[in-house]
Amino acid sequence: MTSTPNSEERVAAPAFSSGDHAFMARALRLAERGAWTTKPNPMVGCVLVRDDDVVGEGWHQRAGGAHAEVHALQAAGDRARGATAYVTLEPCAHTGRTGPCAEALVAAGVARVVAAMRDPFPQVSGQGFERLRAAGIAVESGLMEAQARQLNRGFLSRIERGRPWVRVKLATSLDGRTALASGESKWISGEASRRDVQYWRARSGAILTGAGTVLVDDPQLTVRLEDGEEEFVPPLRVVLDPGLATVARGRIREGDAPTLYIHAPDAKPPRGLSAQVASVPVRAGRFDLEAVLRLLAERHHVNEVQVESGATLAGALLAANLVDEVLLYVAPVLMGAQARPLFSGLDIGSMAERLQLSLIETRQLGEDTRLLLQPAAPAG
Amino acid sequence: MTSTPNSEERVAAPAFSSGDHAFMARALRLAERGAWTTKPNPMVGCVLVRDDDVVGEGWHQRAGGAHAEVHALQAAGDRARGATAYVTLEPCAHTGRTGPCAEALVAAGVARVVAAMRDPFPQVSGQGFERLRAAGIAVESGLMEAQARQLNRGFLSRIERGRPWVRVKLATSLDGRTALASGESKWISGEASRRDVQYWRARSGAILTGAGTVLVDDPQLTVRLEDGEEEFVPPLRVVLDPGLATVARGRIREGDAPTLYIHAPDAKPPRGLSAQVASVPVRAGRFDLEAVLRLLAERHHVNEVQVESGATLAGALLAANLVDEVLLYVAPVLMGAQARPLFSGLDIGSMAERLQLSLIETRQLGEDTRLLLQPAAPAG
Repeated sequence: MTSTPNSEERVAAPAFSSGDHAFMARALRLAERGAWTTKPNPMVGCVLVRDDDVVGEGWHQRAGGAHAEVHALQAAGDRARGATAYVTLEPCAHTGRTGPCAEALVAAGVARVVAAMRDPFPQVSGQGFERLRAAGIAVESGLMEAQARQLNRGFLSRIERGRPWVRVKLATSLDGRTALASGESKWISGEASRRDVQYWRARSGAILTGAGTVLVDDPQLTVRLEDGEEEFVPPLRVVLDPGLATVARGRIREGDAPTLYIHAPDAKPPRGLSAQVASVPVRAGRFDLEAVLRLLAERHHVNEVQVESGATLAGALLAANLVDEVLLYVAPVLMGAQARPLFSGLDIGSMAERLQLSLIETRQLGEDTRLLLQPAAPAG
Repeated sequence: MTSTPNSEERVAAPAFSSGDHAFMARALRLAERGAWTTKPNPMVGCVLVRDDDVVGEGWHQRAGGAHAEVHALQAAGDRARGATAYVTLEPCAHTGRTGPCAEALVAAGVARVVAAMRDPFPQVSGQGFERLRAAGIAVESGLMEAQARQLNRGFLSRIERGRPWVRVKLATSLDGRTALASGESKWISGEASRRDVQYWRARSGAILTGAGTVLVDDPQLTVRLEDGEEEFVPPLRVVLDPGLATVARGRIREGDAPTLYIHAPDAKPPRGLSAQVASVPVRAGRFDLEAVLRLLAERHHVNEVQVESGATLAGALLAANLVDEVLLYVAPVLMGAQARPLFSGLDIGSMAERLQLSLIETRQLGEDTRLLLQPAAPAG
């Protein structure tokens, strides 16, 4: 994905007031409310402001439903006339499952539109802005673009790179171990961490694991929220299983979520299997992981994939430079040097070769520390 | 060490006002100013309050110098009459290198003394209070005792257990590695972390390492502060070197701090060695680590020892249940499963046997995360 963290500051920042920033920040927070439900669509928020008062706000709640702008315009009614619309993404100009938002903004008499970023589709980027400008509306773009891109990093990855944003979730001991030599790993992290994982699952389009994890840990890989928590679109459970050895096994067949087994071309899916299957090329006994990710993006419209696996798959993704984010729950325990490592297959011979990540965020969850990390951009 | 985290709440809390707590908190902060200089004495702070006004405050600055109470009384002058003295430790009743503080408080006409804790020496505990009460002063003890004990955990460990408080400092990658297989480890942690380590060294009475670290990392193990930072008593550098193989090697012989080599009974220290030496029993090729710690407490009056070593010594201390605190700098890098572990020699076969620690504090230092941990109290 083309990262543009500085384009906002570089190009547009001087033109925006602190009020503009505050309203856009509000729009971004609204957008995020759709994290569990808008997929595979992007999260979008809209705030309508007239004379410094918020007269309407909305967010895109689910694919196929009304866009953020429409919700905000409905809430504002006549007060939308002469207002400024803060939107986290360029309003659409095409008629998809809903009417074009640019038209709706024009019809409502909005005077100014401030967007965090352009439409990421190269073919349609700027068309919404053109339509607005043609109607005499003042249009500015690039306010808090870095934040908007971070919010929709999954959607942008799928559109711009043709693969999902890959988040590797791991629970580790202080000494970097995810399981004992025996495979035993329940539970390294505490209850607060295990609850937190559910929220990250809920925003994911898919949860990816390997056959080994299915056999040893037997996870269900569904989203389990507390009563009263919001709804979500269940992520696709994806098992990398070259020989389809696990299709008849494990709790992964239970629960209210679809499952996809990815197998080697020479494996034959059994008849009557209720789960989905797909074949992906294997090289030297290992799946072509780029092909796996392309499949998830193209056929299943997965924006964010959360990897919940053992050290082999996690290490293979990392070694292939396919990890975008590491979500690490560090529990205050020691498991000893015989226990299993975080990532296998990293061949690092000198400190210069060490894999540098950037710490995005730290958070305490009970006694655990949650680190959100992204691989540091390679030099140059 | 007998831990009494709840005695304050259990016994005395209802008697103390929020003002009492605020003034004791101030006294504790003052006490901590002596962290780099009072050793081997305890850190002590004193705040004198009359009519809710602070009329004098002080802290124990260095062994042999005036006690906290004396500094505070000097600052208060006549305003000490009728005041309440908040002290983090029972005032002394004996004439040591300075006159007894209990007498000084009586002479100044103080009306009430609130102490965080009793004198830890069983033989003299309570004698300061008795002297004050005999002079008609109201005496209360136990306010913020847990905090006072935490502050002086090193001193209390030496007095109550006959060994220093053992802090193991480690810099680790996310995957729990302290060095590559080659031994290379410079630098895992960032600059802010390496600066932070200096402060922890400054408060330590000794820095303990092994001959292997001297040979591979060649550390100086002195305290290096920025210009303008406070003075400190240089900690004793202690090298565990059974055969005295390293006495003629390394930067550890440089710098303005004493060095002690601990060797096996059968090793012969070379003539003309300027460093100190001591012999400690060896069992099955390994030093008796309890004897090492006893030696440091009894002969060198070390309150806190900071271990800066490789995985072997760190693991041996942990396995011997001699680690009181782990100071862990977690850098956002991955070093791979071939790299060296945090602790060697931990034989953990099931999750029930995993070593549980308690997270005391987390802090961001640049891109690193600093965790301060203490082994969890064993059940029962």
